[in-house]
Amino acid sequence: MSEAVTITDIDAAAARLNGHARRTPLLNSPFLDEIAGRRVWIKAECLQHTGSFKFRGAWSALSALDEDTRKRGVIAFSSGNHAQGVAMAAARHGVAAVIIMPSDAPQLKIDNTRALGAEVVLYDRVSEDRDAIGAQMAEARGLTLIKPFDAPMVIAGQASCGLEIAAQAANQGIDTAQVLVCCGGGGLTSGIALALEARAPNMTVRPVEPEGFDDVARSLRAGRIERNPALSGSLCDAIITPQPGDLTFPILKRLCGPGLSVSDEEALRAMALAMLRLKIVLEPGGAVALAAALFHKEKIDGEDVIAVASGGNVDPALMTRALALVDT
Amino acid sequence: MSEAVTITDIDAAAARLNGHARRTPLLNSPFLDEIAGRRVWIKAECLQHTGSFKFRGAWSALSALDEDTRKRGVIAFSSGNHAQGVAMAAARHGVAAVIIMPSDAPQLKIDNTRALGAEVVLYDRVSEDRDAIGAQMAEARGLTLIKPFDAPMVIAGQASCGLEIAAQAANQGIDTAQVLVCCGGGGLTSGIALALEARAPNMTVRPVEPEGFDDVARSLRAGRIERNPALSGSLCDAIITPQPGDLTFPILKRLCGPGLSVSDEEALRAMALAMLRLKIVLEPGGAVALAAALFHKEKIDGEDVIAVASGGNVDPALMTRALALVDT
Repeated sequence: MSEAVTITDIDAAAARLNGHARRTPLLNSPFLDEIAGRRVWIKAECLQHTGSFKFRGAWSALSALDEDTRKRGVIAFSSGNHAQGVAMAAARHGVAAVIIMPSDAPQLKIDNTRALGAEVVLYDRVSEDRDAIGAQMAEARGLTLIKPFDAPMVIAGQASCGLEIAAQAANQGIDTAQVLVCCGGGGLTSGIALALEARAPNMTVRPVEPEGFDDVARSLRAGRIERNPALSGSLCDAIITPQPGDLTFPILKRLCGPGLSVSDEEALRAMALAMLRLKIVLEPGGAVALAAALFHKEKIDGEDVIAVASGGNVDPALMTRALALVDT
Repeated sequence: MSEAVTITDIDAAAARLNGHARRTPLLNSPFLDEIAGRRVWIKAECLQHTGSFKFRGAWSALSALDEDTRKRGVIAFSSGNHAQGVAMAAARHGVAAVIIMPSDAPQLKIDNTRALGAEVVLYDRVSEDRDAIGAQMAEARGLTLIKPFDAPMVIAGQASCGLEIAAQAANQGIDTAQVLVCCGGGGLTSGIALALEARAPNMTVRPVEPEGFDDVARSLRAGRIERNPALSGSLCDAIITPQPGDLTFPILKRLCGPGLSVSDEEALRAMALAMLRLKIVLEPGGAVALAAALFHKEKIDGEDVIAVASGGNVDPALMTRALALVDT
C-alpha cells in the first residue's frame, strides 16, 4: 500500500464509514459570533461515537484490513481518545482490541476503554518501554497495530470529517474560510486539509495547539520536524504529542497556514462558552480551535471561520472548573 | 384556519423550516443502554437554534403569517425557551418581537432573549396581569400573539421534530418504540404524536413530567383536563404549565400512552449522564424524558426507547450541581 493519501482513498474511507460514524452537525451561535467578530462555525466532533473524531480513523483502518488479519485482533497505544475509538470500532467488527495505556491516564478514559470491550494493558511512562510491551503482545497474538495518526488509512478516515465540513459549509453558502483544527500528531489536521484541497480549495486549514506544546506550528515555521520540549504540564493532554508525524508533516507543510496556540485558560473558557451557547461538552484539547477563533481573532482572516471541536472526553471536575470561569 | 393539525400542515411546516431549523442528531451510547436495560436513542433537540425545540414552532408560526401581518411584529408570553425561539425567528424574518416575561425568570434567559433582538417587558407574577399588559401592547402596535403551544402552526412546527425521529429511527432499522417526550403544555408532545401517527404508526408517544406537576398524566388518566396544584417548586421550570392545552389535550388523549414522571434529582442525574456520555448539555426540564428512560425502565416496554432531549438552557450553577452527583 502506498503511503500517499489520495482523495480516492478518502472517498473510499467515507463510504466504509457511512452508516457507522455519525455525520456531526456544524453549529453556530450569534453569541459566539459577537465574541469572535465574525461568523464562527463549530464542527461538533465531540458528538462522534466515543466522544471524539478518533472513531473515524479507527473504523477506517479496521475496515480496510483483510478479514483474516482483522480476525486476529488489533492493538493500539493511546492515552485515551484513540483507545476508545479503536475499542468501539473493534467491538463493532467483532474482533479483539488490546490497548496499551499509560498508568497515569485519566481514570474515565481507562474505564471507558475497558467498558467498550477492550483489554487494557497499563504501563509506567517512566520505567517501562511501551513499544517493547506492544511488540511482544502483537507478535504473540498476531495483532495488527492501529497507529493513532501516522498511517494512511487513519488519515483517510479522519479526512471524512473534512468532506462533511466542505459539504456543510457549501450548504451555508460558505466557500472561503480558515478552518482551525485542534492538532496533536496531525492525523485529523492533515486529513481535513487533504479533503478540503479537493472539495473546498478556497479553505485554508490552520493547526491549533496548546501554548508551550506547539511542535507543529514551530515545525511549519522551520520547514522541518521539531519536537516539544516537554510532554506534560498542559490540560490539553489529548493533543500533546512529541512531534508531527512522518506522514502527516509533509501534508501539513504543503497545505496548512501558520499554526496558532492558546493558553489552558483560554481552552477552559472556550469549553464554558461551548456548554452555554452550543450545548456541547468539550475537553480542553478539543476546545483549542474554538478558543483560537474566540480569543485570537486578530490572527485570523475572513468573514467566516470554522473551528473543529475534536473531542469531549473530560472529567466532571474539569467541566466544573471551566464553568466557574463564566460569570452568570 | 381550521384548528385541526393534519400531516399536510406538518409537511408544510417542515418545508418552511427546511434550511432554517437544524436537523438535530439522534444520539446513543452503550453506557446509557446499559443503565436503561435497552437501547436508548436521544433526539438532541438541545442542539436546535436557541437551545431548544421552541425555535421550530416559532419559525413555523411566523413564516405562516401573511406578510403584512408579520411586518407589524409579534408578541409572546414566556418564561424562557419560547421567548428565545420567537426572538430569533422574528429577528431572522426582520420583524419586531415583544416578549412578556415574569421578572423572576432565570437571568440567562432574560439576557439571551434581549441579545437575540427582542424587546423584553417584565411583569410581576403576583401583582400584575400579564394578559392585560400583552393585550394592550398588541392592540397599540398591531402585534400578533405567538402562543407557546396551543396553536395549530406552533404544533405543526414542533411536529417537524417527529418527522425527523421517524426518518432517523427507520435509518437505524427501528420501527417500534416508545417515544418519551418532555411535556409542558403539550405542543411538542402532540406534534410528535401526530407526525408519528402518519409516518411511524408503531411508535407510541408518552409524555414525561416532573413529579408533583403531572397535570398531563393525570388528565390522560381522568380523560379530561386537570390542573397542577402549584406552578413553582420544581427545577424543571421550562415545562411547568397550569394544564394541558385545549388543542393539545385531545391529540394527546387520542394518541399517547400513559404519562411518566421523574424527580428533580433524577432529572439532574440524567443531565450529568448526558454531559458525560453524549457530550450534550440539558436543562432539567429537557432531561426528564431521558431520566424516565434511564431510571424508570420497568414502566417502559420494548427493545428500543427514544427520549427527546428538548432543551439545554441552564445556568452554570445548575450544571455544576448536576455534575456533583456523578462519582468519577
